[in-house]
Amino acid sequence: MAHHDFAPTTYHNTFGSHAPVLEVDPGDTIATTTVDARGFDRHDAARAGRPNPQTGPFAVRGAEPGDTLVLLLHEARPNRARGWTTARLAPNVLDFGYEAGFAREIELASWAVDVSAGTVTLESPVNRLTGQPLPLAPMLGTVGVAPDIGEAISTMTSGPHGGNMDYNRIAPGVRVEFPVFTQGALFFLGDGHALQGDGEIDGTGVEISMDVRFTLDLIEGRTIDWPRAEDDTFLMTCGNARPLDQAVQHATTAMVRWLEDGYGLTTREAHMLLGRVVEYDLGNMYDPAYTMVCKVRKSVLAELGFAG
Amino acid sequence: MAHHDFAPTTYHNTFGSHAPVLEVDPGDTIATTTVDARGFDRHDAARAGRPNPQTGPFAVRGAEPGDTLVLLLHEARPNRARGWTTARLAPNVLDFGYEAGFAREIELASWAVDVSAGTVTLESPVNRLTGQPLPLAPMLGTVGVAPDIGEAISTMTSGPHGGNMDYNRIAPGVRVEFPVFTQGALFFLGDGHALQGDGEIDGTGVEISMDVRFTLDLIEGRTIDWPRAEDDTFLMTCGNARPLDQAVQHATTAMVRWLEDGYGLTTREAHMLLGRVVEYDLGNMYDPAYTMVCKVRKSVLAELGFAG
Amino acid sequence: MAHHDFAPTTYHNTFGSHAPVLEVDPGDTIATTTVDARGFDRHDAARAGRPNPQTGPFAVRGAEPGDTLVLLLHEARPNRARGWTTARLAPNVLDFGYEAGFAREIELASWAVDVSAGTVTLESPVNRLTGQPLPLAPMLGTVGVAPDIGEAISTMTSGPHGGNMDYNRIAPGVRVEFPVFTQGALFFLGDGHALQGDGEIDGTGVEISMDVRFTLDLIEGRTIDWPRAEDDTFLMTCGNARPLDQAVQHATTAMVRWLEDGYGLTTREAHMLLGRVVEYDLGNMYDPAYTMVCKVRKSVLAELGFAG
Amino acid sequence: MAHHDFAPTTYHNTFGSHAPVLEVDPGDTIATTTVDARGFDRHDAARAGRPNPQTGPFAVRGAEPGDTLVLLLHEARPNRARGWTTARLAPNVLDFGYEAGFAREIELASWAVDVSAGTVTLESPVNRLTGQPLPLAPMLGTVGVAPDIGEAISTMTSGPHGGNMDYNRIAPGVRVEFPVFTQGALFFLGDGHALQGDGEIDGTGVEISMDVRFTLDLIEGRTIDWPRAEDDTFLMTCGNARPLDQAVQHATTAMVRWLEDGYGLTTREAHMLLGRVVEYDLGNMYDPAYTMVCKVRKSVLAELGFAG
Repeated sequence: MAHHDFAPTTYHNTFGSHAPVLEVDPGDTIATTTVDARGFDRHDAARAGRPNPQTGPFAVRGAEPGDTLVLLLHEARPNRARGWTTARLAPNVLDFGYEAGFAREIELASWAVDVSAGTVTLESPVNRLTGQPLPLAPMLGTVGVAPDIGEAISTMTSGPHGGNMDYNRIAPGVRVEFPVFTQGALFFLGDGHALQGDGEIDGTGVEISMDVRFTLDLIEGRTIDWPRAEDDTFLMTCGNARPLDQAVQHATTAMVRWLEDGYGLTTREAHMLLGRVVEYDLGNMYDPAYTMVCKVRKSVLAELGFAG
Repeated sequence: MAHHDFAPTTYHNTFGSHAPVLEVDPGDTIATTTVDARGFDRHDAARAGRPNPQTGPFAVRGAEPGDTLVLLLHEARPNRARGWTTARLAPNVLDFGYEAGFAREIELASWAVDVSAGTVTLESPVNRLTGQPLPLAPMLGTVGVAPDIGEAISTMTSGPHGGNMDYNRIAPGVRVEFPVFTQGALFFLGDGHALQGDGEIDGTGVEISMDVRFTLDLIEGRTIDWPRAEDDTFLMTCGNARPLDQAVQHATTAMVRWLEDGYGLTTREAHMLLGRVVEYDLGNMYDPAYTMVCKVRKSVLAELGFAG
Repeated sequence: MAHHDFAPTTYHNTFGSHAPVLEVDPGDTIATTTVDARGFDRHDAARAGRPNPQTGPFAVRGAEPGDTLVLLLHEARPNRARGWTTARLAPNVLDFGYEAGFAREIELASWAVDVSAGTVTLESPVNRLTGQPLPLAPMLGTVGVAPDIGEAISTMTSGPHGGNMDYNRIAPGVRVEFPVFTQGALFFLGDGHALQGDGEIDGTGVEISMDVRFTLDLIEGRTIDWPRAEDDTFLMTCGNARPLDQAVQHATTAMVRWLEDGYGLTTREAHMLLGRVVEYDLGNMYDPAYTMVCKVRKSVLAELGFAG
Repeated sequence: MAHHDFAPTTYHNTFGSHAPVLEVDPGDTIATTTVDARGFDRHDAARAGRPNPQTGPFAVRGAEPGDTLVLLLHEARPNRARGWTTARLAPNVLDFGYEAGFAREIELASWAVDVSAGTVTLESPVNRLTGQPLPLAPMLGTVGVAPDIGEAISTMTSGPHGGNMDYNRIAPGVRVEFPVFTQGALFFLGDGHALQGDGEIDGTGVEISMDVRFTLDLIEGRTIDWPRAEDDTFLMTCGNARPLDQAVQHATTAMVRWLEDGYGLTTREAHMLLGRVVEYDLGNMYDPAYTMVCKVRKSVLAELGFAG
């Protein structure tokens, strides 16, 4: 259960079987940093190129294909005072033929991020949102592992390996499980957001560099199909695909399986319970693969006497 | 601001320009009943045929195309002790080729509904959910008006006129606005659910007959494109379409317009605010048109100084 | 087997259970006219309003729900010298964020239609297409019957009842079968196009009024789910839905069933044959429901010894 | 313009920046072989693992990112006497809840392939298709180049780099252009099919090993976004994505651009011409990315005086 401080010097634009930057034991904790989606660090210095440069990969000793990697995200804290977003919603989320009526050229907005005050405040462009603090809610847009069969997948998109899910509950306190496809699992992280609405519908989340602290652990011999997450309130399964319909199909099927293999429900019980209590989040509707999240409240399972 | 007690004797399977069963003034309140999705009433007597037989239509004096109808839903209370659901998730929400491994024939589950205790409890089939109370959360699966150009649209589906949205926040305390397409607006309601998860992913919501009390009001000369709803916490716009992507597009576009025409934001402000704070619900992913709901917390608007 | 000449005076904007304008016996032939998509007749006189005003409905004596209506389309001939289109592709068929770079305002193009020469020639706007004849290929954008449970469905869209499928093989020589949902079947037709590409991707098809001649016939006691068509070359099943994926699903399933119930293939034979020889057309990707068509060459079935 | 005979000994399951097996000059011709989708060669000997093992990559001297690679496919000829398919349609192309009513276990069908007779004939399972020759129509399911930013993408799917498009017009006589993303372009090919219907709707195309002969050429300094193909009859642009709607959007946008940059049409002319004459093919609706193809007849362009 060692602690590692790791200062990255290289970054990756794909989730793939890259040489690990650090090898750790299951249960070890790592403190490191991430650059923002365009590769700028805490000093606003360019450190890497687009898209979404990743810190890592971190190898976990003993991880083999068919195992499950566990991420405990302790901290994801902006480490500079300013982040950026686009200033318009993506056409993906608006009616065909919608015309915003404002200048189309991409124009980045600038936001002041104050970690101690817990606020994110628009600086420019100037309008009636400017200067009004919104609550800080840091998250990581990308967390994932090396994919199967030697694939190297762009950090712009996501899949069964995780990746650029841009889901705003991947935040401090979350526990995420990933399928292991390669020796060492090879965990990557990046694309910190200081504040992002559901769906990342403007394509950004107040993009910012971060100090991150997390533990990696291993469940040997237990295989999952898609990333699963858990916080104090919810079990969450992520489906990454287009259209949203297919993302729901992956996430719901994964939740049925989790209730079966993790909580001991029969298939019939899992179906009937989900029909009554399921919830969904729209993770992102911007990236090449969209993300839908299927959720069940842990309190519901506890009250029914189902234990994980 | 009269109060009307109305006992229905006829029911409709389409939202259309049917003869009104009652004409009321804007601001009047109506107490009536609804039968369940298969047409059974409080005595479990068959009163109407499938699909989703509707009580109404109620005409509002003075309502003209281009106006907005307002529904204030005060009460939707199950009026019998037993509801039903399917006992399996719909293929719509599961992976292609998913096999449940239990008998495929449709088998209805039976649930005890206890309004005073606030519980919904599985009676049959018998499994580990049986006998364990879940919290009652009554809602109306269908609320809507007569559509445009003389259309008569099945109560199985939904559209700009509302209809079978199966969205679980259409519950007591909600205020819903509908576009008016015909003289009198012609409001219908039905398809009560005692407890439904997000997405109505098993196609049902503990289907039950209800006692309902609501007020109808009118906003003359103000035109909207899609149903808008509001409760203590959220502004909500409903988009009804397939795939879910298109439902999101309708709902998000409608929310941009609401922030503009209702709260005075510029288009740029509306885009930038939604990117930071938007939330979404999956209304249903079962009916011929799926429903996605775009939400904004009213507290966020209030803190920013935007008033409706 | 009477012949009827029918001069329409009323038009409908929904497929619904409207009073029939003429009642005919199975096997009777009708010669009539259609107005264009905006309601203009052979003299360019406005006769009806949008959308897609329909001639009819024509009732067939003896048609009952569960029967199949047969349309034999003998002739669909433009009856004036000029049709119109839009002058730009719909955003539906172009990448998110695509910008054409030409003026956005809708601007109708004008086309000279010469039936005796068999040509369609752009008149305006003036560009290098202007004055260059393209081959005339007349078709009917809308053919359909009254839908089920008393629905009245806009002539902008389509469904199991047919409707606005905008499929360019609904042309002289085609035989189309429709499910019968109401007494008399109630057949409607309209929305003539002089020349339309696959998918109606600019939303139009050189819109023009027409002289039409067709026979209506009846297959009693044989029930189909979706419109089926047949010409000299192909069996064709139409699926109408969004997204295109779902339209393919309806059309393919309907073709499996046609091979089973019409040509005596087992389910396994139908699956295995389609895997080898199926073809698809994109009917439309513009209307509220998109249309995909599943096709099998009749020569393939004949060579294999399967007879309909 | 050398000729190379190349006997592969290694195969790849990803399109990626693998070491080239052969480097050729622009204009050179290569004769080689491909194994079938499960890695079996002409002797039915296992040579590689799934999915879709690829022959290559072949590097073209001088190819740089931003260039266009040209494939002239001269020959793709089955080199053994037997191929295989599944024996059922994929759930992707059938209605939700469709039940085939035959045994669900995957069971491979066996087909005799006779190149000299030009036939493909079912051997087993035995039904009324067995022993009846269908016309041979060889094609390559996968053709593509190494993708951008160092991605390595599974040979099960497709994208802007080409890949597993499973489009049945990628057949002898076709000319295909690919974007070049890496030095040398790195061309791969495989997944031969003796006969495949549109859409690869049973997931297979009479899978077989092949002798292949092709020329690789280079267009320096001309950049394209998606694979473009051309045969005697058609210009074809491929869009690879889900749902089919998005694949159409990519393909149509790419065709507009081809008419502009390759044939000199203005944007307005390209839009107006496509609205009248466009055709579409369903490439595949089985792989992780679906493929739609936008087509224009070359004779139409020639008659209008537009030359490529």
